[in-house]
Order: sequence, then structure tokens, then C-alpha cells
Amino acid sequence: MKTPSRAVVLLSGGLDSATCLAWALHRYDQCEALSFAYGQRHTSELDAAKRLAEAAGVPHRIISIDMQSLGGSALTDHSIAVPEEQSQGIPVTYVPARNTIFLSYALAVAEVTNSQAIVIGVNAVDYSGYPDCRPEYIEAFAQLARLATKAGVEGQPLSIDTPLLWLSKAEIIQLGNSLNVDYSLTVSCYQANAEGEACGKCDSCRLRAQGFADAALPDPTRYRHAS
Amino acid sequence: MKTPSRAVVLLSGGLDSATCLAWALHRYDQCEALSFAYGQRHTSELDAAKRLAEAAGVPHRIISIDMQSLGGSALTDHSIAVPEEQSQGIPVTYVPARNTIFLSYALAVAEVTNSQAIVIGVNAVDYSGYPDCRPEYIEAFAQLARLATKAGVEGQPLSIDTPLLWLSKAEIIQLGNSLNVDYSLTVSCYQANAEGEACGKCDSCRLRAQGFADAALPDPTRYRHAS
Repeated sequence: MKTPSRAVVLLSGGLDSATCLAWALHRYDQCEALSFAYGQRHTSELDAAKRLAEAAGVPHRIISIDMQSLGGSALTDHSIAVPEEQSQGIPVTYVPARNTIFLSYALAVAEVTNSQAIVIGVNAVDYSGYPDCRPEYIEAFAQLARLATKAGVEGQPLSIDTPLLWLSKAEIIQLGNSLNVDYSLTVSCYQANAEGEACGKCDSCRLRAQGFADAALPDPTRYRHAS
Repeated sequence: MKTPSRAVVLLSGGLDSATCLAWALHRYDQCEALSFAYGQRHTSELDAAKRLAEAAGVPHRIISIDMQSLGGSALTDHSIAVPEEQSQGIPVTYVPARNTIFLSYALAVAEVTNSQAIVIGVNAVDYSGYPDCRPEYIEAFAQLARLATKAGVEGQPLSIDTPLLWLSKAEIIQLGNSLNVDYSLTVSCYQANAEGEACGKCDSCRLRAQGFADAALPDPTRYRHAS
């Protein structure tokens, strides 16, 4: 009997990671969703991740990490305001080493669950200026994973799958739509309220709204202001 | 005025990291010690780290990480026995992705404190079979750090310093001795008791005792059995 293929899917509860989960379910026999509670303002994102994992019928692991004590980002340091204007360069919403910490935990989970892949929804097109979303960064992590793990040492390297890397937001939404993703379950807003309603103003909301418009698909996002 | 040079030193409380801290204090203007509470059996190591940081007069940050929920290692899964015989290949004391997770947090700390270096006491000579202690692994992490961070993107790559990489245990002890490290403050044993007394039997104890013997220096380790 063939050993089932397994993947660990990073699931934030946003539009991109929800699309990744649907993509991974078509590609791997068994998926496990992995989320992080890291003191983010928008805990409604975690609730969205729970709903998405439940809807997909996959196990969901939430790892609590104390990123707040590291400070340095508007997403975790509540004394820094989230900007509502288009920002230049690396934005203040950047969380230090976030993807590196997330991928490191995913690597540990992949190792203990004998998974062949980590699936992460980074994107190099609708790029917000985060250095750890670039393809060369992902390649460097894949190289690290080959050298870091027992499986890698024994000749079974882990794949870091980035199905959204070169897709525009509109193409991501079209991909998810073809995979029957229910985007009304997802939350992208940096400052969503407890009900998961979006502000409609932050960088993330702007990219998302434009994506639905460009994809010529109805936007199921729940906004807290009429926009 | 010249900006002071800064380093983040990974401090486990063992012999190697205590030597690294002394080395870093001679090389950088300001050091910060970083330890992890990860459900290890030997919490006496963390107490040792606190004593070492205090003795060195450096700030000490302890980050709690829930590695225990990942399982898979005799060091964190208390249902797996620590072997007392010399082991072959990758030992059961291996913690999945441990150094990758530790270095990722160190990267975040380095970024928020504007540090130029991370100092880690990995060693490729008295090698216990951990894949993430090899020089090629460290090089891969340094490459990742260059691509992952704001400072790296802006042309200020972070150095991953491994002063012990090519030293035998005896040479590490001689280096530390020349830097006045008080090794009686350190704990290396995988199953030290609450008082920090060593078993004298595990891989780590064996390497350490042989190191003092080869260095022809008195061994200040406190053993719980006469040996």
C-alpha cells in the first residue's frame, strides 16, 4: 500500500492561505492546518482559520508564540497605529522574522508528522514590501530545511510549496473560486473587529477589494462601514 | 560617536554557550543573552543560564516556546527514556527543528535590537549527530537571515557567529578558561536534578568529562553520584 502523502498548510484565516488549503487538499492525501496565536490585533483571523479547517475537515494545530514581547510591529505592538494610506518601502505592519518563525515551527510539525511538504501562501506579485515573502527567501528556507532535518539528511527533502507565488490577487481569487473556496469565511483586514468585519481601508483590505474587482467576481467581504 | 556593536547570544546554561557568551563579551560592545523555556526535562539548565547572564552583567531574555506539544524527542517527551549508552546516528534526544526555531527567534530579537550578530555554540567536532549543528546548516541559516530581514534587505547582513564550530571539547574548555568562565555555574547534563547535579552517564556528561580530562583542567561539574 502506498504511503499517503502529507502536507502541513500554514493557515492564517486570510484569503491567500484559504486558497492554499484548498490547493493542498487537491494535491496531498492528508493535510494538517497550522495557525499561530502571536498576539495579533486581529484574533478574528484565528477564528476564521478554525472555521476554514473545520469546513475542510482537516486537523488544526494552533501554536501560541509570544511575538508581542519582541515588539516592533503595528500588528503586535498596539502603541503603533496601523496606517490607512498606501505605504512606501517596508511597512510598519512588518513583524520581525515572522515567516521565519512560522516556517520553523512548520518544519518541526512536518518532521514529527512525516510530512513531505509545507504549503505557504506567500506572494511576490501583490507584494507589500515584506522581505520574507520573496521567492529567494523561500528558496533559502527550502535549502535550510534540506540541511536541518533528519528526513533531509536521510535524503527525503521537504518541499516548500508556494502555489500563489506568481499569481495576482485576482488570479488567486479565481483559483480559489475554481476550488470552491468560501471566501466569506476568510478575514484579511489588519484591524478587523471581533465579528471579523473589515475596515476597508488598510493595505490588506485595499489589495483584497481590488482583487475581487479585477477577478470580476462578487466580493463576499463583510465590511463594518458601507464603502 | 561610533554606534556600539551589538550581539544576541544563545545561552542554554551549558558549557558551550557559557564559553560563547564570554567570547562575545570580548568581541561586541553590548550583548544580550537569549534562552528558551521549551519544556526541557533539565530546567536546571535555565537556572544556570540566569546565573551566567547575571554574573556577566548582561540583559537576559527568556522566551517560552511550546515545543512539548510537538513531541518526538526524549528531551521533551517524558515517555521516551534518555539513553545511557553511546548512541548511533541521530539520537533520540534530537528535538525537531530546535536550532531552526531558536535561531528564528534570535533573528527576531536581533532585528528589533539592531544587533549585528547572533552567537551560537554549535560544534562540528564533538558532533552528537544533530543535523542542525553542521557548518552547512549554519551557512544556510546565514543566507536565510540575509534575505529575511529589513536590515539584510538594506545591505546590513547579520553575522551568525559560531566560535566553537571547529574546536574540540577540550579546546572549548581551554578557550573558556582563558576567558575566566566559571564552569561550575554551567549545567550540561540531559537529566540534571533540580540542584543542577549531573548524572555523569548521558552523552552530554560523557563528552564534558572527557573534555576536562583532555584539557588537563580540573572538572568543576557537580555529579550526583560519586564517579
